[in-house]
Amino acid sequence: MKFNIKTDNEKLIIGNQDTNQLAKEYGTPLYVIDENRIRDNYNRLYDSFSSKYSNFKMFYATKANTNLSVMKILNDEGSGIDAVSPGEIYTALKTGFEPEDIIFTGNNVTNEELEYANKSGVTINLDSISALERLAKLPETRGKRISFRVNPMVGAGHHEHCITGGPKSKFGIKEEEVCEVYQKAIDLGFNPIGIHTHIGSEILESEPFMLAVEKMMDIAGKVHKEVGVNFEFIDFGGGFGIPYTPEEEVLDLETFTTDIINLFKEKLDEYDLEDIQMRVEPGRFIVGDASILLTRVNTIKESYRKFAGVDCGFNTLLRPTMYGSYHHIVVANKMDQENVEEIDIAGNVCESGDLFARDRPLPKLEEGDLLAILNAGAYSFSMSSQYNSRLKPAEILVKDDEVDIIRRREEFDDLFTGQNIPLRLLK
Amino acid sequence: MKFNIKTDNEKLIIGNQDTNQLAKEYGTPLYVIDENRIRDNYNRLYDSFSSKYSNFKMFYATKANTNLSVMKILNDEGSGIDAVSPGEIYTALKTGFEPEDIIFTGNNVTNEELEYANKSGVTINLDSISALERLAKLPETRGKRISFRVNPMVGAGHHEHCITGGPKSKFGIKEEEVCEVYQKAIDLGFNPIGIHTHIGSEILESEPFMLAVEKMMDIAGKVHKEVGVNFEFIDFGGGFGIPYTPEEEVLDLETFTTDIINLFKEKLDEYDLEDIQMRVEPGRFIVGDASILLTRVNTIKESYRKFAGVDCGFNTLLRPTMYGSYHHIVVANKMDQENVEEIDIAGNVCESGDLFARDRPLPKLEEGDLLAILNAGAYSFSMSSQYNSRLKPAEILVKDDEVDIIRRREEFDDLFTGQNIPLRLLK
Repeated sequence: MKFNIKTDNEKLIIGNQDTNQLAKEYGTPLYVIDENRIRDNYNRLYDSFSSKYSNFKMFYATKANTNLSVMKILNDEGSGIDAVSPGEIYTALKTGFEPEDIIFTGNNVTNEELEYANKSGVTINLDSISALERLAKLPETRGKRISFRVNPMVGAGHHEHCITGGPKSKFGIKEEEVCEVYQKAIDLGFNPIGIHTHIGSEILESEPFMLAVEKMMDIAGKVHKEVGVNFEFIDFGGGFGIPYTPEEEVLDLETFTTDIINLFKEKLDEYDLEDIQMRVEPGRFIVGDASILLTRVNTIKESYRKFAGVDCGFNTLLRPTMYGSYHHIVVANKMDQENVEEIDIAGNVCESGDLFARDRPLPKLEEGDLLAILNAGAYSFSMSSQYNSRLKPAEILVKDDEVDIIRRREEFDDLFTGQNIPLRLLK
Repeated sequence: MKFNIKTDNEKLIIGNQDTNQLAKEYGTPLYVIDENRIRDNYNRLYDSFSSKYSNFKMFYATKANTNLSVMKILNDEGSGIDAVSPGEIYTALKTGFEPEDIIFTGNNVTNEELEYANKSGVTINLDSISALERLAKLPETRGKRISFRVNPMVGAGHHEHCITGGPKSKFGIKEEEVCEVYQKAIDLGFNPIGIHTHIGSEILESEPFMLAVEKMMDIAGKVHKEVGVNFEFIDFGGGFGIPYTPEEEVLDLETFTTDIINLFKEKLDEYDLEDIQMRVEPGRFIVGDASILLTRVNTIKESYRKFAGVDCGFNTLLRPTMYGSYHHIVVANKMDQENVEEIDIAGNVCESGDLFARDRPLPKLEEGDLLAILNAGAYSFSMSSQYNSRLKPAEILVKDDEVDIIRRREEFDDLFTGQNIPLRLLK
């Protein structure tokens, strides 16, 4: 099925729960996460790779969804963690991940961040020569097992902001300098054991990923031969896409992993590389379609256009406004009705760009209808803010018959965390 | 001066403080707010209008910067508050504003929000017929003094997302229906005493604002004549711009307010309107240039382009990435140096779009340099998030020799506010 939804007549169902009941009981806006779907996504991807190449490990890109319960579930499944900040390292350690199962890939890291990462015992994946040189000057970093992020001049993604390889990218060591950088790492007393890249996001076909694999294997082979590095892992990053629109196809996993593993093995042979762990860092693929955002229509407005106004906005889900991303929307209490009109779905933030959809074909909408914005598991809550002094919504986790509040709805006083008015202003 | 900055040889100064000392003492990234500048901006705008028309009041658009101390300062100066959510009403009441000095202009408001606003005693400015009808059904709302937001088919602004009038806008009552809506309000037992519009943001010349004033006065005149409404106020919203680039000119306040007040008075006469309070709702103009964001360069990187990497990202200041907005950047420890190179200023978020500037002419940058991102007082902290599990920065308030922490830097545990892991996941 393209979207992870079930229906029972007019009702949208998550786990064994009627979303209409969930909205009544827990209020809206509400993030609802489907635990089984996270586990299923993880295992489908893991099995598809590991059945073809057993020395394989996945590192969940936690920036997609940092909820502690989501992290716990992935810990339970045996995932590692791709962390991009000290906060993510801390969160991973807190949820039970071992340091050796955490790879830290910072961008523009400070010395304090490098020091924190080093003390935590995680693998540090360096993004610049500057970071290498600064790490070398910190206490107790000699002999450290490190890796480098490479910019292989191949980029792909759903939005210019998310194409993370190629000539404009701020990420990684440029291709031409890779050998030199590994040599420098050895000269500085480090033990470089990995190589890493990440080319972008929302990739739905083999081709761009294959290009990156080929490029990276050639680079790894060259470093192995010329610098004598014995790699323990090659990490291809993430970017595995999910369909957001009804027209997009689901990533054909079998074809995808077959293509990639075949190429990977060919290249291992070509460069006499042995005992190499293949790593990938999926985020969206694991959690994207495992969550929906429930929001209630409070206003039907016929202005120069027709709008259905809902009780959340881009502070709650930024992707449509920031990237122009499409999120499929269904009416959780009218799942059996046909689309009969095209309507704009407007959020409640005081900016014109705060729209979840323009001219979206939907059943006849009325005030009180419950909308479900699909694929709200990745880059959704994790990008949320309190803009317009809006309180962040609750998150609930559903597993069959069980429902748990995993993050309470914010209250007014959460707007004032850490604030202090100087005495002189209180006179 | 175009930008609100002072220098002392190589140092950037705020109040009587060396920003380099502030960064050392309070860490980076750091928002630094200049109290005197807020007061001065408020008074310049207030005086320029009120000297020409005394029945004038300003309602600070608090969504620009909701810090409690900023609110206190504006309360002290005699401002009212433009609130767009219950959270903003609550914040205004908490910082000492009287309900009658708060106008609530929600968009796509729920019944609960209308009820909260009604109980608070603030003026409710209705954005849709739906909200009017639903307000009428709530307890104790009859006789309520209300106003309406009108969409006058005139829009202006720095980005499509911020043009809030015109045919595509989700805001306001459309022009053709205004008389009908005021009649309906009277029929429902309300006391409509105001009319409101807001056409956009970052307006730097009289013209677009004049168009809106003319249109709104014609509409108000018509409602007065045809429906018999005796307006107590006409509220033209905000949108007064500040220069973000070195090329933009400062809004010529004297010309601007003279043009507007003359037109306003003409129209009052034309429609026999009397005892009308003129209201405006400045946000950016009051706080925009009163704050800077200090961030330290940790990485100089020569990839396919040249980057200076800093210790914050779009989670801390969203405007450049979200709207492509220009923010002027100066080197707080090299204020006496000429620009010698063009360089990209990259944030630390794991997205390619996380850049504060492309090809920005700057003095020769080195690791350890302190950058000041200017005009970071409006829509900056208020739009910030914890994306990438990044901790929100501290905010400090400077007034001459006084320096106060008005928001402490976040700590790791602030990432977990309100979270709860179900017992079954802890087994």
